[in-house]
Amino acid sequence: MNYRMVFYLLGQMMRVEGLLMLLPLVCTWIYHEDTLTAFLIPIVLLIALGSVLTFKMPRKQDIFAKEGFVVVGLSWILLSVFGALPFLLSGTIPHFCDALFETASGFTTTGASILTNVEILPHSILFWRSFTHWIGGMGVLVFTMAVLPRSNARSVRLMHVMRAEVPGPVVGKLVSRVKSTARILYGIYIAMTLLETVLLLFGGLPLFDALCHAFGTAGTGGFSIWNDSIAHYHSAYVDAVVSIFMLLFSLNFNLYFLLLMRQVRPVVKNSELRWFLSIVAIATTAVMLDTRHLYSGVFKPLRYAFFQVMSVISTSGFSTTDFNKWPILSRTILMLLMFIGACAGSTGGGLKVGRVMLLVKTFLREVRLMLHPRSVHVIRTDGKRVDEETVRGATSFFITYMLLFSASVVLLALFDHFDLVTNFTAVAACINNIGPGLEIVGPTGNYSLFTDASKLVLTFDMLAGRLELFPMLMVFAPAAWKNN
Amino acid sequence: MNYRMVFYLLGQMMRVEGLLMLLPLVCTWIYHEDTLTAFLIPIVLLIALGSVLTFKMPRKQDIFAKEGFVVVGLSWILLSVFGALPFLLSGTIPHFCDALFETASGFTTTGASILTNVEILPHSILFWRSFTHWIGGMGVLVFTMAVLPRSNARSVRLMHVMRAEVPGPVVGKLVSRVKSTARILYGIYIAMTLLETVLLLFGGLPLFDALCHAFGTAGTGGFSIWNDSIAHYHSAYVDAVVSIFMLLFSLNFNLYFLLLMRQVRPVVKNSELRWFLSIVAIATTAVMLDTRHLYSGVFKPLRYAFFQVMSVISTSGFSTTDFNKWPILSRTILMLLMFIGACAGSTGGGLKVGRVMLLVKTFLREVRLMLHPRSVHVIRTDGKRVDEETVRGATSFFITYMLLFSASVVLLALFDHFDLVTNFTAVAACINNIGPGLEIVGPTGNYSLFTDASKLVLTFDMLAGRLELFPMLMVFAPAAWKNN
Repeated sequence: MNYRMVFYLLGQMMRVEGLLMLLPLVCTWIYHEDTLTAFLIPIVLLIALGSVLTFKMPRKQDIFAKEGFVVVGLSWILLSVFGALPFLLSGTIPHFCDALFETASGFTTTGASILTNVEILPHSILFWRSFTHWIGGMGVLVFTMAVLPRSNARSVRLMHVMRAEVPGPVVGKLVSRVKSTARILYGIYIAMTLLETVLLLFGGLPLFDALCHAFGTAGTGGFSIWNDSIAHYHSAYVDAVVSIFMLLFSLNFNLYFLLLMRQVRPVVKNSELRWFLSIVAIATTAVMLDTRHLYSGVFKPLRYAFFQVMSVISTSGFSTTDFNKWPILSRTILMLLMFIGACAGSTGGGLKVGRVMLLVKTFLREVRLMLHPRSVHVIRTDGKRVDEETVRGATSFFITYMLLFSASVVLLALFDHFDLVTNFTAVAACINNIGPGLEIVGPTGNYSLFTDASKLVLTFDMLAGRLELFPMLMVFAPAAWKNN
Repeated sequence: MNYRMVFYLLGQMMRVEGLLMLLPLVCTWIYHEDTLTAFLIPIVLLIALGSVLTFKMPRKQDIFAKEGFVVVGLSWILLSVFGALPFLLSGTIPHFCDALFETASGFTTTGASILTNVEILPHSILFWRSFTHWIGGMGVLVFTMAVLPRSNARSVRLMHVMRAEVPGPVVGKLVSRVKSTARILYGIYIAMTLLETVLLLFGGLPLFDALCHAFGTAGTGGFSIWNDSIAHYHSAYVDAVVSIFMLLFSLNFNLYFLLLMRQVRPVVKNSELRWFLSIVAIATTAVMLDTRHLYSGVFKPLRYAFFQVMSVISTSGFSTTDFNKWPILSRTILMLLMFIGACAGSTGGGLKVGRVMLLVKTFLREVRLMLHPRSVHVIRTDGKRVDEETVRGATSFFITYMLLFSASVVLLALFDHFDLVTNFTAVAACINNIGPGLEIVGPTGNYSLFTDASKLVLTFDMLAGRLELFPMLMVFAPAAWKNN
């Protein structure tokens, strides 16, 4: 384990977090709020500690897969701990476990909240809360490494971090140009966020509202500045803008990159995109038909069904209606979508459509293998053969995911006394980075009733889900810390 | 596809079912019941049809894996359809879908019932209902092929059928002596059933009661002749006998075979056995501590906890108490045990402990691979290297299982309007061949309220679960029926 390099990277990350925290400080100034020290103290702490850790560039800069995982896991834990300070210091969330839960929920773009009334919070705190979604969505470490100007030799290191931090089974093999690619992807991310902000301004939202909700959509997070989320605006236009942007932010960002390079064909032929759009279309139609008796006219059921399907499959977690009261078929479909999640390489969570696709193809291959045991059977995606390592990766991921899921449900039952649906969907909503579940943690409820122990379990699940499980498991695996 | 051979084997199976149905006919005679025609008609039908199909031995007797799956899948469907006739003809279950559900539940050793009051049924019908568990537990096709005296060349064919019908990830590689091995295993099965019957007689049970419950335990089925199941006897002795035999019938029968051969060492060192006993010990302790406030003294919590843990992990489904009313931790543990199930090569269902063990080891290997990407990592069980095909088999099985599970939960939500926990545990209880679930399908409830469509889905799940998924999927896969 290259400890020096791990600490160096952590220091860099802390400096970046300190700088990003200057933005809510602007809010403090604009709205004349008394949250100055709540932000200044962590900013000073982060920049000071970060500067100490990055004071001397380590001579040995090599990092391998192991360091990549550990540095990503640790970064996100530290990010959440320091990010929780403004909530604690401002007194808006006086309890540490609660503040940690809320911040981890923000950075992991989960959007699960322990707050019962967000409308009494100061603007600067609300801004920071939504801004964490936006920071978490883009992957803070890759961002750190991509924006700071350094030698080109960093690309290989960046690759290891990227593998650990960027969601999805396959990271494009762009090693040689990974840094410039990352910058282009961030350009797209920023441009799309601005576009949504402008469109929301057209819908009559104040700039503050537009920005906060654009942050929440871009990161597929789901924190709102209103207790009744997007439903607050009672506007079909706002619903439509947010729905469409939830869809856009659920897609693999490489597709936008390809479109920028004028490569339309591979985008149109992309199997994950086709699967994703098909799932969205089928689920929306089914939910619309199942809930049509609850809403008047033809347009309203479509509006609510599409919004809620997009909110769950993109793992955002915004709501425009209390789907806890929807018929059982719709709730079952939403629960299933929770697990499928968005596309690989997007800001969304869940198992990822690409991985579900690989799992279904693995099943089909098994059937073919049983029919014709002596033939060779390969799995293909986009016409290309998927190597066995990727298939094995997807199946191992699924197994790890189910083990963590089961363990978490048992721990919640041990630490709390809620019903099975609450516990089950709370874990599902956290591990898949969605936010609301069903029953007590439904769209009108929140996570405040859980004990501290349960909140820590769910915090771990959120971080594990966001980082594709293994970085968080590595941090707590003694073997990862050995020198060899 | 060798159609002639498939039909020939189906015919053999039908003749055996016809002969086995003579036993409940003895009950009809002893208890002077008017169920004579209800049994005689299917017996005549089965033996007549069976004799026509087996009239001429096919010249080409080769069957391959594909035929093995299809013949097993079809056999079990026909077995259930003909087995349902006594219920229909006696008027005890007048509706076809109900009778099919009940019979499939019997043969698959599930023990899920649509009957609201079993105590009004005639003895002969109750006997047939419990006897189906015993027949299903031993695997009717392997039995058919093992008992009928024929040429030795049959071994390879038997192997293909055995692979498809015997539960668990690994079938011992005993091809050359598979027939004599099968006979010894059946000897053990019969001896253990008789031993339990005798022990239950000592507990004061009438012979009829003792036999029916021994059948239910041996097959890990769970049908009782009383509405309140084993609780009816209010006897700690009966509870203990049934608990211990549920444990014994959950173990891999190859272990008993080894013990008969005086090979104690491999039995003691068997990893699946160790995992199974550890899971039982941990779960029993946890449930006992969690429910101790519900029962007086030290012994009672242990008695109820051990019985219920064994009932669920062995996938029997007997009950001595309404665990629907237990605290959430106990219910969560029981739900998890539902999925783990018994050992491979036992009469129990579920994922099987051996497969869960392989899945956990696959997860651990993935962690090791990430820490040391360039080393070679193999999975070991009992000190021996597990070949990659077995690992791939276990992971593919798990994926197929989860896909079927999800699809079934959605279909139940589509066809019925019950709550999530009912639907979820109904599918879990059927696919894992347990019987009772939670809420509406809890130990004091039953499956009668479901629509016919849902009952057919659950019937498919029971058969798929009992036959390790693939035979049932093959029967409905057009590709399996092609000649090539």
